[in-house]
Amino acid sequence: MLELGLLTDTNKKETLLAYFEQEAELWLNWLASFTRGGEPGVTRLLYTKEWLAAQRALEGKMTELGLVPSFDEIGNLYGKIKGVQETAPSIITGSHIDTVVQGGKYDGAYGIVAGLLAIDYLQRTYGQPVRSLEVVSLCEEEGSRFPMAYWGSGSVVGKRSFAQIDSLQDEEGISFREAMADCGFGEGAGAPARRADMAAYIEVHIEQGAVLEREGLSLGVVEAIAGQRRLKFTIGGESNHAGTTPMHMRRDALEGTSAMIGLLRQEAVRLGPPLVATVGRLQVLPNVVNVVPGKVEFTVDARHADGQQLDAFCRWTVDAFERIAAERGLDFACEEWFREEPVPMNERLKKELDDICRELAIPSKRMVSGAGHDGQMFHHSCPTALLFVPSRGGISHSPDEYTSPKELAIGIMALAKLLYKLGYEGELL
Amino acid sequence: MLELGLLTDTNKKETLLAYFEQEAELWLNWLASFTRGGEPGVTRLLYTKEWLAAQRALEGKMTELGLVPSFDEIGNLYGKIKGVQETAPSIITGSHIDTVVQGGKYDGAYGIVAGLLAIDYLQRTYGQPVRSLEVVSLCEEEGSRFPMAYWGSGSVVGKRSFAQIDSLQDEEGISFREAMADCGFGEGAGAPARRADMAAYIEVHIEQGAVLEREGLSLGVVEAIAGQRRLKFTIGGESNHAGTTPMHMRRDALEGTSAMIGLLRQEAVRLGPPLVATVGRLQVLPNVVNVVPGKVEFTVDARHADGQQLDAFCRWTVDAFERIAAERGLDFACEEWFREEPVPMNERLKKELDDICRELAIPSKRMVSGAGHDGQMFHHSCPTALLFVPSRGGISHSPDEYTSPKELAIGIMALAKLLYKLGYEGELL
Repeated sequence: MLELGLLTDTNKKETLLAYFEQEAELWLNWLASFTRGGEPGVTRLLYTKEWLAAQRALEGKMTELGLVPSFDEIGNLYGKIKGVQETAPSIITGSHIDTVVQGGKYDGAYGIVAGLLAIDYLQRTYGQPVRSLEVVSLCEEEGSRFPMAYWGSGSVVGKRSFAQIDSLQDEEGISFREAMADCGFGEGAGAPARRADMAAYIEVHIEQGAVLEREGLSLGVVEAIAGQRRLKFTIGGESNHAGTTPMHMRRDALEGTSAMIGLLRQEAVRLGPPLVATVGRLQVLPNVVNVVPGKVEFTVDARHADGQQLDAFCRWTVDAFERIAAERGLDFACEEWFREEPVPMNERLKKELDDICRELAIPSKRMVSGAGHDGQMFHHSCPTALLFVPSRGGISHSPDEYTSPKELAIGIMALAKLLYKLGYEGELL
Repeated sequence: MLELGLLTDTNKKETLLAYFEQEAELWLNWLASFTRGGEPGVTRLLYTKEWLAAQRALEGKMTELGLVPSFDEIGNLYGKIKGVQETAPSIITGSHIDTVVQGGKYDGAYGIVAGLLAIDYLQRTYGQPVRSLEVVSLCEEEGSRFPMAYWGSGSVVGKRSFAQIDSLQDEEGISFREAMADCGFGEGAGAPARRADMAAYIEVHIEQGAVLEREGLSLGVVEAIAGQRRLKFTIGGESNHAGTTPMHMRRDALEGTSAMIGLLRQEAVRLGPPLVATVGRLQVLPNVVNVVPGKVEFTVDARHADGQQLDAFCRWTVDAFERIAAERGLDFACEEWFREEPVPMNERLKKELDDICRELAIPSKRMVSGAGHDGQMFHHSCPTALLFVPSRGGISHSPDEYTSPKELAIGIMALAKLLYKLGYEGELL
């Protein structure tokens, strides 16, 4: 076996990076081979045969690497290296094994591969850790097969329960429980999913945005996972003949909506990052060339790392839109249909990651995650950190998802260093 | 039979109006009974059994009233009263018998009923006219069954031909020719549709807008039928994750489109009537709540009575939209896919109608028709006039279409007076 050197060997740093580069690429391609056939990208939905094959293959890999594998009752897979302090809570790293339909090979998979490579390297280089180290391949995060996201991590921290999935079915009418049972999982079919023995959860993940790439940075230390509000607006005007209705007699729902979209953008830009606000979905009725639009329905997705500022922005939005509607004699209705609070990452872990980037001379920045991650669940039970590597073009949930081997390796190196500090130096959080 | 008096009997005016009110209501309800069953409103599509039944029933009515009925080869139905000057070109009035799907009982039908009532009244009151008077029930105007509008009037003036309909099918795959043949019509199956013996065409029609109602007027003397341009715009941005893409990194196709829609409205209002401009159809891609819109396709329908001003407005629109796209780094494409020139109505007939309104103390105005009508076809062959009665709420192409019997009667009275001037006083155009 290749002599990789210690994390502190500056002259061996390139060798170690080259090793991680090569292995990460190999492992990600290997994991990507567990996919539904005949379509581009990776499709590995919860409790499908591709999913089960991937988890079983990872179980084998763990054994091969000398980690002790174990499934919990819902299919989360852990690989553990017992620490000297056997009963002390574990340091856990990993991510989710499921994908969206026709997703990429990095989202989720990278966090698992990074964890395995980092822990394997640490064990081979430093021997048994002081605290137990675990890599987890979480069963589900995306909500792609059933209308339920964070099933894996949520169950670990008690934010998801069997009661919540009882009535759920996939698009083909297969029940959640049935699909789970077909893979050999279910209530009591393994160790309870819920855990109380976690000292920290650390996840590396692709950014899924283009900030790191544009700014020429290698790592993003996540300050917080943004909170989200999703609002639905219904603007009512009057459907009229486009030829026979003079401009001044119109109540054009689309024209009013346009003014709202413009103002939303303007205010979001003025307030600046980390606020983002998006009108992603919009439906015009009747949507006919020669008819003045009588009704428009559209959504606003707003995110911010600070819940109060996010609420203030949403209140402003609703007021401003209502005023625009009133000025034009348009009917106005608004409903908030989704709400998720921001989740700050652990201060101490963020500082450690900042220090590591400095020590390894990795160009990095603190940033807010606009997307949701398993970390926001683990945060309820233990100190949690989230580390981003660049996504080419910001593309994700697509076969075009890409992060270079070099970038992948830098993330794994930083992860290894943090796991070393927590697992071997045994620093208390 | 009721003694209706002469058009000049001021003291009999109310009696005549009451008669027209009552008859128009009865006849329109009778015509509305020829409809596809089991749905609201009137559905009488070209060359369907409902359509044929309506034309046959009208043929019967014409005979009953002493008019000589005749079908041409495509199913236009004429009812004629021969004038003393037998060979002189005819004065023709009427409208179309076909409807949109679930349309109202006034659009088209009113012009036919008005023509029949006016000519019947004239014949009974004044005897044989100097010039021949004809009422026409045109086979098709709406383009609702086949992708072909103005089939009836267009064929009369040589703007439509059998060659144009050869490849056309309806939604069920029935060919235009087959549907026509099933009703007993087709090339050479009757008198040629094309006519060269028309002295004038006069049509009364519901406004299909709310201008007359809002301004408290009874009649609209149509100055011109507006020209139309229809443009399709495609705005290309970048589909991105709504959470991970900062505002300043976005190329949001919908935000750019919103700015365009706002500016279009502003400029159309500034330029004022008779210009109207409408974004009626808009499609967002991928149209997902948490994805920045990567592409928007939308249409602009612009109309004006002056073709040059309309073209200038369209050029301004394309330039302005392109500038908005360029400012935002958005891709831009535009195509004009429909173009119809404005059609001025005959000056002399408009003046006659103005005079008639004054003589009968009917509150009226000159106005531009934003919608298309058979008159725009007849205009190619003979002096043409178009007269509007109010549409309640501007509603048309809907079961809710409504014009009060009183308003219907006023239109018929004005028509009768114009037909009298042209047909009995024999004034040359």
